[in-house]
Amino acid sequence: MTQKSLSGVLSALVTPLNGEGEIDEAAIARLVQHIRAGGVKGVCPVGSTGEGPHLSAAQRLQVVKAVRREAGSDLPVIPGVAATAFEDARRQVDDYAKAGADAVLVTPPFYYLLPQSAVRDFFLSLADASPLPVLLYNIPHLTKVAIAPETVAELARHAKIAGMKDSSRDFEYFQNIAAFGLPEFSLLTGSDTMLLASLLAGGHGTIAASTNLAPWLSVSLMDAVRAGDLETARRLQFRLLHIVQLCRRGSFPAGWKAALELAGLCSARTVPPTPPLSRELTQQLFGDLKQSGLELAAAS
Amino acid sequence: MTQKSLSGVLSALVTPLNGEGEIDEAAIARLVQHIRAGGVKGVCPVGSTGEGPHLSAAQRLQVVKAVRREAGSDLPVIPGVAATAFEDARRQVDDYAKAGADAVLVTPPFYYLLPQSAVRDFFLSLADASPLPVLLYNIPHLTKVAIAPETVAELARHAKIAGMKDSSRDFEYFQNIAAFGLPEFSLLTGSDTMLLASLLAGGHGTIAASTNLAPWLSVSLMDAVRAGDLETARRLQFRLLHIVQLCRRGSFPAGWKAALELAGLCSARTVPPTPPLSRELTQQLFGDLKQSGLELAAAS
Amino acid sequence: MTQKSLSGVLSALVTPLNGEGEIDEAAIARLVQHIRAGGVKGVCPVGSTGEGPHLSAAQRLQVVKAVRREAGSDLPVIPGVAATAFEDARRQVDDYAKAGADAVLVTPPFYYLLPQSAVRDFFLSLADASPLPVLLYNIPHLTKVAIAPETVAELARHAKIAGMKDSSRDFEYFQNIAAFGLPEFSLLTGSDTMLLASLLAGGHGTIAASTNLAPWLSVSLMDAVRAGDLETARRLQFRLLHIVQLCRRGSFPAGWKAALELAGLCSARTVPPTPPLSRELTQQLFGDLKQSGLELAAAS
Amino acid sequence: MTQKSLSGVLSALVTPLNGEGEIDEAAIARLVQHIRAGGVKGVCPVGSTGEGPHLSAAQRLQVVKAVRREAGSDLPVIPGVAATAFEDARRQVDDYAKAGADAVLVTPPFYYLLPQSAVRDFFLSLADASPLPVLLYNIPHLTKVAIAPETVAELARHAKIAGMKDSSRDFEYFQNIAAFGLPEFSLLTGSDTMLLASLLAGGHGTIAASTNLAPWLSVSLMDAVRAGDLETARRLQFRLLHIVQLCRRGSFPAGWKAALELAGLCSARTVPPTPPLSRELTQQLFGDLKQSGLELAAAS
Repeated sequence: MTQKSLSGVLSALVTPLNGEGEIDEAAIARLVQHIRAGGVKGVCPVGSTGEGPHLSAAQRLQVVKAVRREAGSDLPVIPGVAATAFEDARRQVDDYAKAGADAVLVTPPFYYLLPQSAVRDFFLSLADASPLPVLLYNIPHLTKVAIAPETVAELARHAKIAGMKDSSRDFEYFQNIAAFGLPEFSLLTGSDTMLLASLLAGGHGTIAASTNLAPWLSVSLMDAVRAGDLETARRLQFRLLHIVQLCRRGSFPAGWKAALELAGLCSARTVPPTPPLSRELTQQLFGDLKQSGLELAAAS
Repeated sequence: MTQKSLSGVLSALVTPLNGEGEIDEAAIARLVQHIRAGGVKGVCPVGSTGEGPHLSAAQRLQVVKAVRREAGSDLPVIPGVAATAFEDARRQVDDYAKAGADAVLVTPPFYYLLPQSAVRDFFLSLADASPLPVLLYNIPHLTKVAIAPETVAELARHAKIAGMKDSSRDFEYFQNIAAFGLPEFSLLTGSDTMLLASLLAGGHGTIAASTNLAPWLSVSLMDAVRAGDLETARRLQFRLLHIVQLCRRGSFPAGWKAALELAGLCSARTVPPTPPLSRELTQQLFGDLKQSGLELAAAS
Repeated sequence: MTQKSLSGVLSALVTPLNGEGEIDEAAIARLVQHIRAGGVKGVCPVGSTGEGPHLSAAQRLQVVKAVRREAGSDLPVIPGVAATAFEDARRQVDDYAKAGADAVLVTPPFYYLLPQSAVRDFFLSLADASPLPVLLYNIPHLTKVAIAPETVAELARHAKIAGMKDSSRDFEYFQNIAAFGLPEFSLLTGSDTMLLASLLAGGHGTIAASTNLAPWLSVSLMDAVRAGDLETARRLQFRLLHIVQLCRRGSFPAGWKAALELAGLCSARTVPPTPPLSRELTQQLFGDLKQSGLELAAAS
Repeated sequence: MTQKSLSGVLSALVTPLNGEGEIDEAAIARLVQHIRAGGVKGVCPVGSTGEGPHLSAAQRLQVVKAVRREAGSDLPVIPGVAATAFEDARRQVDDYAKAGADAVLVTPPFYYLLPQSAVRDFFLSLADASPLPVLLYNIPHLTKVAIAPETVAELARHAKIAGMKDSSRDFEYFQNIAAFGLPEFSLLTGSDTMLLASLLAGGHGTIAASTNLAPWLSVSLMDAVRAGDLETARRLQFRLLHIVQLCRRGSFPAGWKAALELAGLCSARTVPPTPPLSRELTQQLFGDLKQSGLELAAAS
């Protein structure tokens, strides 16, 4: 896995559930086909969007295996790993490696308020032990701990640390990493609401929830930037920003799942105890999505 | 386990490590003897102070078993449970029940920003499934989610939910719970820095880290309140406040472990990736503890 | 003004407006009579509760003069001073001194994120220049800057700095100040929701908004503590906590003013741009106050 | 004053002091010449960078008059207005209008935690009363209150409200405003660390502190964007980001003033009680600036 294979639009895949609350493998297949058709270049299951932290270890493995099957050989599979104990993180990485994953996307331990030295030590130990390339996942509003730019720069020197996803929504932070110009290091934004800005700052792509619904939006935006058509890129960015804000309703990722049910892609069920989107908010969402004119299932 | 057995001073036990970084069962025995001698009425291992979230499941179980052995039949053992997936929480409770625990002390799921309905559903499901009494653990600066007073009142009606530990440091919150006057519900503060205030508001005791070092301080404070000697209680509270603030140095609970090494009770080693107290801060701590005149090992 | 005259229950007076939005001096007279009858020992106009920061300099001075007239010689008058420029603060102190104030209650400058050295320098310069005793006002949720315990201890050595009001709602902070045992320094809580706890920690009283409505509640609580009747004190504390939470509705202090209109003490109008309590919230408040059985106008 | 005259790079002017701590009018003249030479298109004195909130009303007026004299007829002068009382804000606007200002840059009232309806009412009342065009100033880390995108859209319909400066560092917020495409409304970023991103999202320019030191940096960046040379623009953005972060040392704006003293433009003195940059931090700053190769006085 090189930086090249970790650029472009990747999907932060939701985890579809069936009527019994079990993993819905048929819907996983549908979603993977949908995103591949939309031009997505990789799949990240069981991360924040995939409700990984609320799934059991067995369920997470089931999802990763189902995604691997469907992704074929052309789409890299990069499961999320979020654990508070090092031993748990290490075992998850091993399990995903055996299941055919191409890399892992890993948060820092997120129970205590850890100093940077602890963040660094955790990732170095994990990278030493990992059979797979490791992507750092910076999402301080959930982990409470940011991976400081200096820590990223230091970690990037490790052969197994291949890049990062930044979901901090702090654009200065993103630019600080971009300004390092780290060689062979893939810098991806988790905020597709800032995708255009991230690309012009030197970012390589995105791992985004919106791709489950409308993969073509981010993909077209990146195409427009490559073609130097900033006017189109900006128009697509505003559209993406609007869609993302509509789907932020409710407890994440309930809004996305409600929209996906509308699109016929999977059920709106969420993993307990996260509540599904309320009936009232779902109706608002449906109305707003209709008004937005978003092409859903038939993404061009 | 009734409210009566969940009152008084309980110990948020540290997890001692040996030179190889393994669980130090001899030190566990020493600590349990020390706190029992100090008048502590129960033991809570593998919680926040016990670095449970950084231990593997096997290590946590080893600690709980060792504590159970040493605690004998007179000291209730109440392990901490902190998990993001319901299934993990449920299994931990089962494991601890089989290991002889008397109750469990459980945080809400702590990865996502959950609404109160999710907090409630999580605890109700867990209480339904639990063979042991459940204590709610409110520690929003680590879990990001507070258990709202109304949620506590609702949960307290469940037969298996026996009480709570509040580590919010928000004294209005504590009083709001106390004002409910919930029957058969044990209200314990996790902030022994506010022990006196909590008792006078109607609290039943504390689960506190300071007990590892100086159990007699909280115990004497509670004795003074029972005896109506508020002047002594206040003096002891100020002393306790001072000791706690000294030991907050470094990454929690590194300061406590450094003080415990000074006291000859266990090693200063912390569970990775939490760094142990630096040499410089350790020397400051030792000087300050000496100056404070705290009676350590020979707690009366 | 000595510590003795700055103990007990003081009133954080609201600023009543008439139908034209002007200062209502008749209502000021009514309020001062009401609080004196309720046992209040001093009056603090044009502070946070008094909407001082939204009043013009001329309006503030009008209020202070009206309060001075009505307070007679027995009630100390201690206006609030909140300014970002030193020169403004100094001039306000001078104006209030000329208007017959007994002391001033002063926030740190609150626009920038200032370090403690700036907080200290500001208060030392102001105390040097002030003809009146100065009370420090710690209210970090509004000023963004806390006055650190060490800064308080240092400032307390200045002859003109006579005490402080702590509205941080951080009870550890309050105890830290109390533990200093600063001589001739009046330590007052601004959180009457924690009045009982503050008194048992060594506090001298309170400057509280609730006194506008029900002065007898805090006064009776302090009497009960003096009499050693902690059971009654706790009951009164819970009652006070409940009333305060009811009146926190809306944009502060709109809830208090709505309750005061119900009590016939003054109009519910707020100083622009603070909106008055909405009709819906006002009705909820009235219902809840009625249900609480609070004796309003006829406070015993 | 039209949107056109409110685009490009504007200077958030520092307020230089002489050895006695008085306004240094000679240094004001020097600074205005320096920024004009650097291509700046307008001057904003006595704002956050200009330490307006710490200056007396007389000092602020002195600064505005001195800037007006030096700015001649070609540079618009747009003083900052930050007041908690409406009456104070209104009077400042009048005073600046009489002193020849072209517009004003106004924060919401910043003492209380105000709802959006209050923010809106404040600005509408001020705009009604103002002889000058009003720019909204969104800087929630100092005012605690953000001006919500919907509030901005509503306010923009007022004939006197001509634009806004956004210093929130929240790029989604900025894009939300940009996406409105408000006609005749000037959208300026206060975060020149995000200048490139803001321009590509549709922003019209910046009001920035860095212009005091290196006006050519932002000006060249905007020129590069206009010329379609994104590679150069990105290089300049990284450079600007680096310089800004160096000068964030100490209590704002002490780092900028220290750098300006190094550049021979004005003294490092700050307005009390803000402390000047410490000797140690000043030496670090000088070393870092030297190493950065920044052309200071001789900005090309």
